[in-house]
Amino acid sequence: MAVPAPLAVSLGDPAGVGPELLAEAWTRRSRDALLPFFAVGGERILAAAAASRGIEIPVRRIASPEEARGVFGDALPVLGDEDAGYAAGRPDEDGARLALSSLTRAARLAVSGEAGGLVTGPIAKGLLAEVGFVHPGQTEFVAEACDVAPEAAVMMLAGPRLRTVPLTVHEALSSVPALLNTNHIVERARITERALRRDFGIESPRLAVAALNPHAGEGGRFGDEEARVIIPAIERLRSEGLAVTGPHPADALFAPHERENYDAALCMYHDQALIPLKALDFDEGVNVTLGLPIVRTSPDHGTAFGIAGKGIANPGATIAAIRLAGQCAMRRAAP
Amino acid sequence: MAVPAPLAVSLGDPAGVGPELLAEAWTRRSRDALLPFFAVGGERILAAAAASRGIEIPVRRIASPEEARGVFGDALPVLGDEDAGYAAGRPDEDGARLALSSLTRAARLAVSGEAGGLVTGPIAKGLLAEVGFVHPGQTEFVAEACDVAPEAAVMMLAGPRLRTVPLTVHEALSSVPALLNTNHIVERARITERALRRDFGIESPRLAVAALNPHAGEGGRFGDEEARVIIPAIERLRSEGLAVTGPHPADALFAPHERENYDAALCMYHDQALIPLKALDFDEGVNVTLGLPIVRTSPDHGTAFGIAGKGIANPGATIAAIRLAGQCAMRRAAP
Repeated sequence: MAVPAPLAVSLGDPAGVGPELLAEAWTRRSRDALLPFFAVGGERILAAAAASRGIEIPVRRIASPEEARGVFGDALPVLGDEDAGYAAGRPDEDGARLALSSLTRAARLAVSGEAGGLVTGPIAKGLLAEVGFVHPGQTEFVAEACDVAPEAAVMMLAGPRLRTVPLTVHEALSSVPALLNTNHIVERARITERALRRDFGIESPRLAVAALNPHAGEGGRFGDEEARVIIPAIERLRSEGLAVTGPHPADALFAPHERENYDAALCMYHDQALIPLKALDFDEGVNVTLGLPIVRTSPDHGTAFGIAGKGIANPGATIAAIRLAGQCAMRRAAP
Repeated sequence: MAVPAPLAVSLGDPAGVGPELLAEAWTRRSRDALLPFFAVGGERILAAAAASRGIEIPVRRIASPEEARGVFGDALPVLGDEDAGYAAGRPDEDGARLALSSLTRAARLAVSGEAGGLVTGPIAKGLLAEVGFVHPGQTEFVAEACDVAPEAAVMMLAGPRLRTVPLTVHEALSSVPALLNTNHIVERARITERALRRDFGIESPRLAVAALNPHAGEGGRFGDEEARVIIPAIERLRSEGLAVTGPHPADALFAPHERENYDAALCMYHDQALIPLKALDFDEGVNVTLGLPIVRTSPDHGTAFGIAGKGIANPGATIAAIRLAGQCAMRRAAP
């Protein structure tokens, strides 16, 4: 199996928990069998953030992604000299600018193939917007960097017990029913199925589609979106040979015995996908972007300014994001 | 502490898993420290359903609830001679009639105080409707038997890890936003708080109120129900001295560390309450009706006709429902 290039990790907002968790992840590189990765910028910040957790780690500047491979065993490799002061929990413009340049460069390296994949640290969107970030979120930013239409980039939340794909995200619940669309469900399901094969190594992926209404509407008694929108999508996908079931009443779909029957659940709205994921896999939830020419993952949490620098933030999701990016990169690199 | 009267358990549909799980629960009466209970009707059915699971249990007819106390150690007490043939998985009108008469009599005994509480077995509403059941579900039936308005009977789902109260239930998701109402939230919260003190023995109950929109609407960016409807309810409840927090983004609310911060979560719609409960506590979920003069619980699953009589249905929720009813009855009986 070919070895993928080292992974590029963007810092996230330097006042948040991103840098300290990245440092912590590096200390666990052997135990968690992490593929070599490097941070983009933030040499001083990373050392200071590590110290705030009571860990001292060697940080070493590298000039190219490839150098990370040799350095990774001994020190956390950092590409580039962009940096800022470390002030945990106190975000400012300098920090936001660093977060944006780190993200921009890390994405470019992944797109060019110099990095084997991209792991993005948590940012504060509002703050980044003030320094020129024009995208709704990092996923859309990365899609554009890949020259992929935003609607073709599919967000998956992946944990050890569950994978979910929300079909709508940051929308008022009252607008969700009208936003559902048969073609949209079909396209997202196709992208998800391909990614499960290509990136997750699942030969015959099984998709479960959640209903919108309680009890899947009980035959139209409360809500008809199942019959009008969701079932036609499932039928079309089946006619294409995909292993798709549903629409499943959403309350039962995430019960332990049901979770054995599918590899990913397509969900109609944000909380339907995220409630079960966070209830079951809170500290290990990874946000994966499917449908891109590059591998991209992210820990499924925010900047957590309130606990940054206190040594209490849980590194589980960061480690899981790096591990999953490495696994996907390995599968893509396989001949 | 005064000892409550024995609990009345209705059979549920005799073709479903109700009778066999009731028989199984009786065999675990010591291990699970269950208060004495009796079935209402179905002597032959209970024996046959037990046999279908490979357990042989003595079933003994009693003439009054009080007799259950003496019988319970040696045999499953059955009140009344109503019965039907046992045909697991094949519901019919005779069975539906028995389910309805069992429910009716069990409820009456709880209302009169002859039974210390009511545990209802799972019914098939459609079948019961054909033999004269005019209520949307057992909860409404029980409320009417108690002479309580249906809107004053509050459904809570209780598991070992979580308690949730859905503020709307069998409604199309598209109608949920318009159904939310500040007074309604306030009233349900008050009933829930009182029940947590009275029936669950929690001295100072803490309630968490879920948001309707993802990220609680992010300050109105997607959805304003939080500001218009939910926050005014929380403020009113706080002004009355209740310990209420929220509106909480629903995806984070059920994560392990968040669950430590409240005794019950008030949820805006069915799946918001039931997704986390079934993901976490599937085999032990109990449906409790709060706000009634009687104690009433029910296992949170249906008739499961497809697996009835096969010896594979999990008795966890039935046992949990009987145990919880016993605990609530003990607290109400305490001087």
